[in-house]
Amino acid sequence: MKSKLMVSLLLLSTFFTAFSQEKSSQKPEKYSSAVVEKGLIKVSVMYPFAEGKTFDMVYYETKHMPMVAGYLGENLVKYTIEKGIASGIPNTPLPFMAIGTFYIKSLSDYQAAIAPNRDAIRKDFANYTNITPAILVSEVVK
Amino acid sequence: MKSKLMVSLLLLSTFFTAFSQEKSSQKPEKYSSAVVEKGLIKVSVMYPFAEGKTFDMVYYETKHMPMVAGYLGENLVKYTIEKGIASGIPNTPLPFMAIGTFYIKSLSDYQAAIAPNRDAIRKDFANYTNITPAILVSEVVK
Repeated sequence: MKSKLMVSLLLLSTFFTAFSQEKSSQKPEKYSSAVVEKGLIKVSVMYPFAEGKTFDMVYYETKHMPMVAGYLGENLVKYTIEKGIASGIPNTPLPFMAIGTFYIKSLSDYQAAIAPNRDAIRKDFANYTNITPAILVSEVVK
Repeated sequence: MKSKLMVSLLLLSTFFTAFSQEKSSQKPEKYSSAVVEKGLIKVSVMYPFAEGKTFDMVYYETKHMPMVAGYLGENLVKYTIEKGIASGIPNTPLPFMAIGTFYIKSLSDYQAAIAPNRDAIRKDFANYTNITPAILVSEVVK
């Protein structure tokens, strides 16, 4: 009787383990960035390279970008930072020293969140760069 | 005796199920794009906007990018395509009509794979655009 109960308990635990395992095995697809990103809006803040221009990547990564990301709330899916290394075309200058990108669901929500904080964001520029950035709003096609 | 054997088998199967479940439960982190992308090299082919410039996004997505991606083999982690919508700074022109980006592990492997196919790639440009692209090589910081 005791061992019969144990078998039942084990069967039950195996069932739940198998069930939760199946749930886990679906996650990779859900987390695949290709699936998540398509259709999102990107706001890319691009810092062109030129002689005499400076960019403090540590400050940008640890202070500026987290500050701006903090204004965006649930609308922000993720943000990325890249550091320019070289031009891919020989004998041409590096196009950008750095690019920071916000992946968002709604452009109007982004604009509404940034507007009241624009002065704070601009004031912080001087803490890490003397470059005036270009900003590209784009849609993730693939 | 028979039920003792069954208990042992069930214990064994539970052990393996639990073990493989633990492996599965690590996947979300592994597949999180932030974890996967950090440290990768990006090669971004950027098509600046200007009056009279054209860009056929359907051809680019269905023919050109898959062709180039096909040259890169295992070095290519993923590629993305974005379509420029607007400048994020009022009263300034759209910076780029489109950007195609290859996320790769090794820049030298990329260069070695592209070199013998450069003529085919350039020849295909005329099929979708009259823009001369800029190319940014960058490193994913975050």
